[in-house]
Amino acid sequence: MSVKEISVNGRSYQWMQQPVVIVCIDGCEQEYINQAIQAGVAPFFKKMGEQGTVLMGDCVVPSFTNPNNLSIVTGVPPSVHGICGNYFLDTETNTEVMMNDAKYLRAETVLSAFSKAGAKLAVVTAKDKLRSLLGHHMQGICFSAEKADQATLSENGIENVLELVGMGLPSVYSAELSEFVFAAGVKLLEKERPDLMYLSTTDYIQHKYAPGTPGANAFYAMMDHYLSLLDSLGAVIAVTADHGMNAKTDACGNANVIYLQDQMDTHFGAGSTRVILPITDPYVVHHGALGSYATIYVNDQSQADHILQYLHRMQDLEAVLTRAEASARFELPADRIGDLVVVSQRLVVLGTSRHRHDLSELKLPLRSHGGISEQAVPVMLNRKTKALPDNHRLRNFDVLHLALNLVENT
Amino acid sequence: MSVKEISVNGRSYQWMQQPVVIVCIDGCEQEYINQAIQAGVAPFFKKMGEQGTVLMGDCVVPSFTNPNNLSIVTGVPPSVHGICGNYFLDTETNTEVMMNDAKYLRAETVLSAFSKAGAKLAVVTAKDKLRSLLGHHMQGICFSAEKADQATLSENGIENVLELVGMGLPSVYSAELSEFVFAAGVKLLEKERPDLMYLSTTDYIQHKYAPGTPGANAFYAMMDHYLSLLDSLGAVIAVTADHGMNAKTDACGNANVIYLQDQMDTHFGAGSTRVILPITDPYVVHHGALGSYATIYVNDQSQADHILQYLHRMQDLEAVLTRAEASARFELPADRIGDLVVVSQRLVVLGTSRHRHDLSELKLPLRSHGGISEQAVPVMLNRKTKALPDNHRLRNFDVLHLALNLVENT
Repeated sequence: MSVKEISVNGRSYQWMQQPVVIVCIDGCEQEYINQAIQAGVAPFFKKMGEQGTVLMGDCVVPSFTNPNNLSIVTGVPPSVHGICGNYFLDTETNTEVMMNDAKYLRAETVLSAFSKAGAKLAVVTAKDKLRSLLGHHMQGICFSAEKADQATLSENGIENVLELVGMGLPSVYSAELSEFVFAAGVKLLEKERPDLMYLSTTDYIQHKYAPGTPGANAFYAMMDHYLSLLDSLGAVIAVTADHGMNAKTDACGNANVIYLQDQMDTHFGAGSTRVILPITDPYVVHHGALGSYATIYVNDQSQADHILQYLHRMQDLEAVLTRAEASARFELPADRIGDLVVVSQRLVVLGTSRHRHDLSELKLPLRSHGGISEQAVPVMLNRKTKALPDNHRLRNFDVLHLALNLVENT
Repeated sequence: MSVKEISVNGRSYQWMQQPVVIVCIDGCEQEYINQAIQAGVAPFFKKMGEQGTVLMGDCVVPSFTNPNNLSIVTGVPPSVHGICGNYFLDTETNTEVMMNDAKYLRAETVLSAFSKAGAKLAVVTAKDKLRSLLGHHMQGICFSAEKADQATLSENGIENVLELVGMGLPSVYSAELSEFVFAAGVKLLEKERPDLMYLSTTDYIQHKYAPGTPGANAFYAMMDHYLSLLDSLGAVIAVTADHGMNAKTDACGNANVIYLQDQMDTHFGAGSTRVILPITDPYVVHHGALGSYATIYVNDQSQADHILQYLHRMQDLEAVLTRAEASARFELPADRIGDLVVVSQRLVVLGTSRHRHDLSELKLPLRSHGGISEQAVPVMLNRKTKALPDNHRLRNFDVLHLALNLVENT
């Protein structure tokens, strides 16, 4: 093989010597794995900790799915790749839109770069919303479990996926949606043997069940099983998460919500601000679009100082930052966040207006993410790795660097 | 009855119209109650949420047992009552000592004041370490489950406790130690009918088991049962906690420890600093004396600035404060904390030197407290209460105010 390494977004990645599988477990607060091990249902995770590598990393804030999946596959923060939410206010058109379109992506993915250099690639996501971003300019296999039945050779690099996987099309609100991703990954590794595979699940289960409870343990037992199969097929496996997950309730399971747009309207007048919740996506049954991060556009600049002071005095917030402060601290694209960024404390979420959040679908106490409190995520490999420099702040988006450059080949 | 209310430490408390029971559940992260309700084993907690009052409050930081129990029974922060740790450096004698002795207490307790005014008081603690502080200058019944067999009429206002309760003396490391507290509370309410009773458990279970796991659910089911008995006896019940509890590990249950004294010695020379861990108590099997709060005495003041800068650059810390900043922010007695206060992030604990912590007794992944991350605690009553002012930051040490002044008598 002539190509020894490639360079993407200022980082170098060595060519894989065996299949490399990167797994992003959506919403994987580390405690899920720990408690599944304690319950005795996750022997492979336990083995990874004992014989491989287990580290803690920081994800991107806002601790949401899209910004973090894109950071993982580009190796850089949102300030470089441009995806800073699931949802944002496109100031060019003054419309609130999903950030799923590849036109918003400002950096090449490592996946795309490897595919262009001749590597065999495969990407399987749970929800379809991530597929076009992750697969941007990538040659190879790329499909979602959600629309597995619609995969075509021309569009997805594969067809007849349901037959290949041997499962029916799962519901978008199910544990099976994520199981399908893993089952597909195992079949692809067996039959196609991609050089690099990226598997990304959905956090439907983590939004419902706390670590160590039966519903969560069953989900982690399922993943443990498939990870052991990937391992037995000889892959280097690196597991991380897009973000953690925390309860957002009081002791009786009532959601702790600050309706930020209502507060702004009451105190500064309707229309003075526009609150955007970048957690928003079409799948609101999980979380009612309630997370611990919001951004505020101040329409009435004459009130900007008062609004900032008001927010600084507000209880239950972890951080209130100006655009400049937030883009520096969280490495975000300044042109795609509001004038202010608000992060709530661990047990609290931010809403817009009460009437705009339908919580009737939330049958269980709210669990969600988005804040600094969900920044710590697992970074685990089934191999030993060379040490990182002492002062290196490990990020989830170092996972490709670890898997490709630092695995010790024994 | 002639006395209508009493005044203690600048706050007024109305005389009780029925027995009032204050329960401090040690280490009660709110999620323990929430998950026990979800598991269907805590019907009385659920009923309290539906028919009574459920609020969230902030405990005192450091989020340790002694400072918070004393805040609850005095109604004021440690800056007033003086107890700012389980353990501290007594600078008058230059010795590290337990902060259990009542000589360190700088404020009267509400318990003592009511007893002097003629009310019938009872206090039951799990561990004996709290008994002398809580019972200081109080007339009435005051004993610990740990030394229930040694209670005498002259010392504890009661004798033959094991017979009264109908349980054997529990081990100090057991769920039964806390059960004994509740069982005693029910018997005392039946037979002695105190006007005001304070029950304080131990967090042995919470240090071991995560919310929603079988060991935790069994413990909360036990408490739920006794609380329902206290309720059926006509008491106003107010439940709060001294602090929350979090995992302090990575995804495989390995403890995340910063050995602060080792770091200081390596970078600034042995003897340049003295790191104190105020979580320290004689019962280290729980947590190996590892919590998320430490205080540092700087012996070599010429290095003070460098030490502060070094700590500000250190990863995994939530706050690094000077004595003045810490005493202001956390309302602590400035003369009893070190030159610096260090608080680690949610998943991380602080140790002194590696060789001084015996983790061999930790059979389960470390769970602990002490930080800002364990500040949110439940405040629940079995009665509706009048509303607090909008801008009131609820504290766990408002619980006597709620139970005595704000309960709606229907």
